[in-house]
Amino acid sequence: MTGFDQATAVRRRPAAAASATAAYDVDLDPAWQIAGKPNGGYLLALLARAAVDAATADHPHPVAVAAQFVAAPAAGPAVVDVEVVREGRSVSQVRAVLTASGQRRVEALVTLGRLTPAAEPWWQDVPMPELPALSECVRAPGPTPPFPVPLLDVVEEWLDPASAGFGVGRPSGAGELRAWVRLADGRDPDPLSLLLAVDCLPPATFDLGVVGSWVPTLQLTAYVHGLPAPGPLRVRQRIRSVGAGQVDEVCDVWDDAGRLVATGHQLAAIRLPEGVRPAPRR
Amino acid sequence: MTGFDQATAVRRRPAAAASATAAYDVDLDPAWQIAGKPNGGYLLALLARAAVDAATADHPHPVAVAAQFVAAPAAGPAVVDVEVVREGRSVSQVRAVLTASGQRRVEALVTLGRLTPAAEPWWQDVPMPELPALSECVRAPGPTPPFPVPLLDVVEEWLDPASAGFGVGRPSGAGELRAWVRLADGRDPDPLSLLLAVDCLPPATFDLGVVGSWVPTLQLTAYVHGLPAPGPLRVRQRIRSVGAGQVDEVCDVWDDAGRLVATGHQLAAIRLPEGVRPAPRR
Repeated sequence: MTGFDQATAVRRRPAAAASATAAYDVDLDPAWQIAGKPNGGYLLALLARAAVDAATADHPHPVAVAAQFVAAPAAGPAVVDVEVVREGRSVSQVRAVLTASGQRRVEALVTLGRLTPAAEPWWQDVPMPELPALSECVRAPGPTPPFPVPLLDVVEEWLDPASAGFGVGRPSGAGELRAWVRLADGRDPDPLSLLLAVDCLPPATFDLGVVGSWVPTLQLTAYVHGLPAPGPLRVRQRIRSVGAGQVDEVCDVWDDAGRLVATGHQLAAIRLPEGVRPAPRR
Repeated sequence: MTGFDQATAVRRRPAAAASATAAYDVDLDPAWQIAGKPNGGYLLALLARAAVDAATADHPHPVAVAAQFVAAPAAGPAVVDVEVVREGRSVSQVRAVLTASGQRRVEALVTLGRLTPAAEPWWQDVPMPELPALSECVRAPGPTPPFPVPLLDVVEEWLDPASAGFGVGRPSGAGELRAWVRLADGRDPDPLSLLLAVDCLPPATFDLGVVGSWVPTLQLTAYVHGLPAPGPLRVRQRIRSVGAGQVDEVCDVWDDAGRLVATGHQLAAIRLPEGVRPAPRR
């Protein structure tokens, strides 16, 4: 098993001189894949790690990462090119591009800052879901999925049984999945692994009965709001809208102290199968 | 008064040959400013218009625009450089950068697609706010704001009186603003103007009693879910989280037929004044 830090390692190439750009060699790890494609949150973490390394200001944490997924790369070697666009007093702004087999694969705009340990949020209004104890939850994937999901060996996802019905043909219809999430290597969460957390659950369209369709992410934006406490993360993935061949999905992540520490918002493509026709809920 | 289409016009520079890149001259219009800075949604619309023009595939609508705001440009001439990264069957993916006075100002990743007229959403779960009739709402800015907001002459914003208390020192504390929005030039909404709509209301931190602080957008991602019906838009801007010097704010937009047609999600910087200390709501 490849741990998170090893799987997201970046190796800076020597640069000729002081430069606003840097290139990193990376190895896309086959363990962090779903159906032969690297997990989107994994790629976000990898791009952000290179961005943090390239910036010279004291901004060690990704606070916003907006990525466009152009084409899924295979496992193996790839390059991340980073350009530091601006280093300000409180944030640095960076562009990062992942290229593999000579093709651009992911482009990301990364905002870096410095988060303070144990800082309490000043105001939050995103109700935290109640979850049964981890020991009473169902470890994903449950029943054998129709394609290989090695990711679920390196990321433990313990689904609330009330939102795990899709695995046995009984989706709740709410368009929402809730789970405890922790890294199988025992590593505690940090801003980099939060970028993984906002895109590691199955698509919540599963809970609408749309299980057969692949839902490839087109665009994903992640925000990190605080340094997470040690312990498992509480993750809720929710569908906001489905239509016109696209899905709007939001994913909120709380740390073990009950603080909202990260949010992911994505637009994914979807092809709705004939016959699956829930009425709009509201 | 400069109408929306004139203010977001782009003029393509002649290119030497068939190329994946194109450059556009634009004029940043002083009417679309707040306190001397161009509105973020206005800049999104401008970048997206250039992106649509540059793509050769039949993808006339921006469906996702993720932008990083590097430095606010002044009114006047600027250049938008567009690179078409990939043209697929259902979407095209484009990078657009706005430069002014020799400095990069905004970077955006734009996904283009084709939205279908009158397509009903398949599923939506974002409760639409009830709003009083437009004639019973309060036109923003109401009492004279402490800085000039010419934007509110070109964009009519009719606030729900229940969320307009910040103007008279009585914020509701909910962190939410609701309004009818329409262009003062009478133009009906379309995907380009929806990009403006997701970032045209005052910051909803005003409704938390934080009125004096400037809340500059660091990152803004907009999704367009459908072609809007003619008529005014219903807009709700809501704070999700405030802490660590940053604000997580989401803005949802419904058309006159009650469909969720666009969503904006942004991370903004904030400096909280001493003495303003609401307890976290949940």
